Amino acid sequence: MRLSCRLPSIRFLPSYTRRIHHVHRNNSEMSTVNKSAHPFDKAQLEALLSRRFFYAPAFEIYGGVAGLYDYGPPGSALQANIISEWRKHFIVEESMLELDTTIMTPAPVFETSGHVARFADWMVKDTKTGDVLRADHLVKNVLSARLADDKEVRLGAQQPVDPAAAKKKKKDKTPPKVALDPAVAKEYEVILAQLDNYSGPELGELCKKYNIRNPDTDNEVGEPQLFNLMFASSIGPTGQHPGYLRPETAQGHFLNFSRLYDFNNGRVPFASAQIGRSFRNEISPRAGLLRVREFTMAEIEHYVDPEDKSHVRFKEVRDVILVLLDRHVQASGSTRVVDMTVGEAVDKGIIANETLGYFMARIYQFLLKIGINRSRLRFRQHMGNEMAHYATDCWDAEIENSTGWTECVGCADRAAYDLSVHSKKTGHPLVVRQYLKEPIVTEKLVGDLNKKLVGKSFKQDAGVLTKHIESLDESELLKLKEDLSKGNVKIETSEGMSFELSPEFLSIERKTFKQSIREYTPNVIEPSFGLGRILYTLLEHNFWSREQDKERGVLSLPALVAPTKVLIVPLSSREEFDPIVAEISAKLRRAGVFSRVDDSNVSIGRRYARNDELGTPYGITVDFASVQNRTVTLRERDTMDQRIGSIDEVIAAVTDLVEGSIEWPEACQKLPAYDGVQAVD
Amino acid sequence: MRLSCRLPSIRFLPSYTRRIHHVHRNNSEMSTVNKSAHPFDKAQLEALLSRRFFYAPAFEIYGGVAGLYDYGPPGSALQANIISEWRKHFIVEESMLELDTTIMTPAPVFETSGHVARFADWMVKDTKTGDVLRADHLVKNVLSARLADDKEVRLGAQQPVDPAAAKKKKKDKTPPKVALDPAVAKEYEVILAQLDNYSGPELGELCKKYNIRNPDTDNEVGEPQLFNLMFASSIGPTGQHPGYLRPETAQGHFLNFSRLYDFNNGRVPFASAQIGRSFRNEISPRAGLLRVREFTMAEIEHYVDPEDKSHVRFKEVRDVILVLLDRHVQASGSTRVVDMTVGEAVDKGIIANETLGYFMARIYQFLLKIGINRSRLRFRQHMGNEMAHYATDCWDAEIENSTGWTECVGCADRAAYDLSVHSKKTGHPLVVRQYLKEPIVTEKLVGDLNKKLVGKSFKQDAGVLTKHIESLDESELLKLKEDLSKGNVKIETSEGMSFELSPEFLSIERKTFKQSIREYTPNVIEPSFGLGRILYTLLEHNFWSREQDKERGVLSLPALVAPTKVLIVPLSSREEFDPIVAEISAKLRRAGVFSRVDDSNVSIGRRYARNDELGTPYGITVDFASVQNRTVTLRERDTMDQRIGSIDEVIAAVTDLVEGSIEWPEACQKLPAYDGVQAVD
Repeated sequence: MRLSCRLPSIRFLPSYTRRIHHVHRNNSEMSTVNKSAHPFDKAQLEALLSRRFFYAPAFEIYGGVAGLYDYGPPGSALQANIISEWRKHFIVEESMLELDTTIMTPAPVFETSGHVARFADWMVKDTKTGDVLRADHLVKNVLSARLADDKEVRLGAQQPVDPAAAKKKKKDKTPPKVALDPAVAKEYEVILAQLDNYSGPELGELCKKYNIRNPDTDNEVGEPQLFNLMFASSIGPTGQHPGYLRPETAQGHFLNFSRLYDFNNGRVPFASAQIGRSFRNEISPRAGLLRVREFTMAEIEHYVDPEDKSHVRFKEVRDVILVLLDRHVQASGSTRVVDMTVGEAVDKGIIANETLGYFMARIYQFLLKIGINRSRLRFRQHMGNEMAHYATDCWDAEIENSTGWTECVGCADRAAYDLSVHSKKTGHPLVVRQYLKEPIVTEKLVGDLNKKLVGKSFKQDAGVLTKHIESLDESELLKLKEDLSKGNVKIETSEGMSFELSPEFLSIERKTFKQSIREYTPNVIEPSFGLGRILYTLLEHNFWSREQDKERGVLSLPALVAPTKVLIVPLSSREEFDPIVAEISAKLRRAGVFSRVDDSNVSIGRRYARNDELGTPYGITVDFASVQNRTVTLRERDTMDQRIGSIDEVIAAVTDLVEGSIEWPEACQKLPAYDGVQAVD
Repeated sequence: MRLSCRLPSIRFLPSYTRRIHHVHRNNSEMSTVNKSAHPFDKAQLEALLSRRFFYAPAFEIYGGVAGLYDYGPPGSALQANIISEWRKHFIVEESMLELDTTIMTPAPVFETSGHVARFADWMVKDTKTGDVLRADHLVKNVLSARLADDKEVRLGAQQPVDPAAAKKKKKDKTPPKVALDPAVAKEYEVILAQLDNYSGPELGELCKKYNIRNPDTDNEVGEPQLFNLMFASSIGPTGQHPGYLRPETAQGHFLNFSRLYDFNNGRVPFASAQIGRSFRNEISPRAGLLRVREFTMAEIEHYVDPEDKSHVRFKEVRDVILVLLDRHVQASGSTRVVDMTVGEAVDKGIIANETLGYFMARIYQFLLKIGINRSRLRFRQHMGNEMAHYATDCWDAEIENSTGWTECVGCADRAAYDLSVHSKKTGHPLVVRQYLKEPIVTEKLVGDLNKKLVGKSFKQDAGVLTKHIESLDESELLKLKEDLSKGNVKIETSEGMSFELSPEFLSIERKTFKQSIREYTPNVIEPSFGLGRILYTLLEHNFWSREQDKERGVLSLPALVAPTKVLIVPLSSREEFDPIVAEISAKLRRAGVFSRVDDSNVSIGRRYARNDELGTPYGITVDFASVQNRTVTLRERDTMDQRIGSIDEVIAAVTDLVEGSIEWPEACQKLPAYDGVQAVD
């Protein structure tokens, strides 16, 4: 994650079009479902997420607090499943060292890391009400709105309105829409493409130049001021130890570097990983899960030799094609992306090194696996001013959603910044010591003082002389050697002392040095995931509604992350179904498939509709045939197909489906279609 | 967890004896290992935990902060495995509703819950240095030390020392050990058994009466003062919204009660569950993981009908035998425990209800499953003053360790306290509405005012009269009815107004009411787990050292929670072993068994010793025979037994062992003993 929290530059989409990726990799005729029949309806999705308690404003009954959300049962389960897959995909797959470090952090740590001075956003105050706004968001919102108005006016073929006349109408609640001078519109577009690159004072200038005011009050705003985004507290009963809640988990990794390095038996490269809560006291968060004050992150710190950032598994991802938006394109005021293999991007120097490229490809694979739409995912490189103070290169995985493109994963090369500053501050070396098979042999000129003589002659000043001689470089020593060969030499030190030396005081000779250990501060490549943002965009990408029933929302979450994998539905609450329901539950539990029973007193159709909203991919119905013949039906969420089979056949099929070893069409080959009279939808 | 953080009463053990439970349920001759050869050495365990980075002081290179710890790779994995089993044992098994709510909480929530006023400990200040001490800990430590000295002096057959003479020696670093008057010693013991029951002022009295001083300085201490244990912060850029870091996850459950109740289709009982971080600003924590300022909890809030606290699955646990220490025994100054089935304890009213008893039994089963020693586990009931303000009954699962008995799980009946206060404060009903099959029919006397007449006669005062009539109880209405039957009546309201009513103004009749919905605030049974405390006591219970090598520590963690299940050890770093190592890794990963490879450049013996310290239960050695015959050896950690088999046989056996479907003796029946010449230990 970046130190600066500013939003990525926004890309204007013509009009929002819904594109859902296909859940089934091998789409057969059978499983083709038209999921794009209706335009995406954000209000409908939000109503669903609230009704089914995916998440809700925290402290809702107390009126809520902006930027704080609670996850209910389906949201918690979805998050836990994403985390579980993240652990497998990254930690287990690459034997990373997992950590769990504290959130509460004493102030000196963040003073050293630079967060106390620089982890801040620019805010402006309404000059009359004192309301606080984020400066870059204000500029973005006002200019975007003017561009949108301009477009609407032009499409409506209206004549440009006289700005003076418009100003007179200021007291109206809704100001009239104004067309822009085409040159001005172009200026706005360039500003928006580069928005993340402006400093605070520059944002202030923009507000003045373009008369940008608080849209809620139409009042002017003051000069931008820095606001530190860390929550402050104090540790212990005396109040003498200031602390902050961490805004990222990264510092907890860096401070433990020596222990991790030992644990890894002194080998490099290796990675540490941590999943945990972080906090950012955002100025005025209004974007749901996309901008919150408390959030769960998953961070990897991969330690590499600064002189060798190759990756041993790079060949496995070389051919992965990514969508890239590099810094040069953005600097030119454009947001045009290119498709390119990771291999080519590294070869061409667009991505700085193999390790960075490797992780970008792995991030891409992870996001697709959990259900992010490939066509709405891009990697955007940070521009110079936008980059956090510690980073040398940074690419964000951005996911498109109804608010635009949102940074969901950052992938930064933090170089040696963090380890160096903590090491310097604490005096604790955070370094790698590499035993060299071939020692490095070097020769250099060395000045050797006759200690006995020097001590006797200069007494307490001998140290100053020694230090001075040690500080001399090759050419200075050469000059001194030459001078000494001619007789006594007078030496002036930087402390203003002078020493007269005869040749017997000092011999200057070329000596050979053998270095068998190379000591270096490793560089750090950091993939950093905002899990809440991924979770929200995943919900948007997988939401649609049925052609035949616009009101009925469906969440086509992959089984891998779906909160519940199988819903067990007894036809009614008659007791004779209980043993079969219990048997199926127990067998699924043994197979490691998470199921729930819904035996509530509503129709089967309503129960399935509820579970379509919860994203449950499969349903098993228990009816009278189950009691008589031990058969049950299996329903697939997206197609609403129903198949029939024995209890054990259906459990076997559903286990394979959930584990991903077969797809729905293959399940259909094993289980005949259900042609029962009983309508379940 | 209790609102009061005071330690449970301490039980004095003769001298610390090591008792390890057996990891294998069916102990055969083969797997019998003498794990109690050496007395428990706490310093040795702590050195191991630090060396292997189970956990370490957070911000160690900055000098650390008391009460904050970071978990390294084995500690994180152990914690994750405990959590994973907790999820299965509680959440999945009982279809609990999982939540993930925020840590940052606006102040009004904790004002309502009582935490702002009462979540506090008593602290005393050293009158000269200003050092802060927890009052109850001070009393405990000083009196315990005096009792220990007394015992030592008596055992040493020394004569009691004159206290006046002892006082003169005050300036010695170590004051002389003094024998106590037997009556005084008895007083100390009674105080210690009831320590959790003293109020702050009472603790102050004890300090004065027994001349209890700061042991570090021998200075007197001041009057006890309350110190609130919540970390304070503020939310948003203006600093106008004070907030606290939650000291428990519970409030996040309660505030979401209505949403959870809806999610559960309006059925009660049900439970919510949450695993997450909480914070308590402890006064001066010095007990390692047993008392920390930031910790991971797992909490269940089980909502029940206050009139029916039976549990549908109680019969499954009725015969579980628990070790109980009830409040009456403690009040009598004793710590004598009894063994009793949960069924009997509930029947006798020792445990208040079935649901509380059910969870105590489930907690007991969980703790044994992850490796806690049965003989060092007891349930202690809270005494009256000790109980948190919200609780009506509370039992702590206490685990014995080198510091005494430590509360690790609290199991409280919070009654309707929390839901009621939040409901009252916010006006949002947090209730259950139960549709009654048989409506409750009640009759009562009702006063019916003739509205038209009343309005006409009393105009704006009519409301006061209506309110007055509504407030009358049965007997008052009866009296009024009688009076009215005799003619006009003069009525005086509490506002001091008077009304003269004739009989036609008011008719008082008996009416029938039918109630088809019963509305009630559910009661809450709360099992609350401190995971760090469980983790630490688990490490103590499973640590021992080999008879033949005292320096070699072993952690006999059950495979269920062991950080790594299998260590793969190639004989040397020769490349020919690589494909077999890769094959075994891949096959174990596919079987869901977490393994690590140790191919570091040290002897196999040293690598196994390292993994004994990490608690890795099984090791697979790859040697030249593996390349030639595809055989590998399997080593068991506790016995150091070695068996041999084909790669697939060994993987199958180890998978069964890790899943718990077979024990080591059964594995030995399948795999012959390894009689190779190569010594691996």
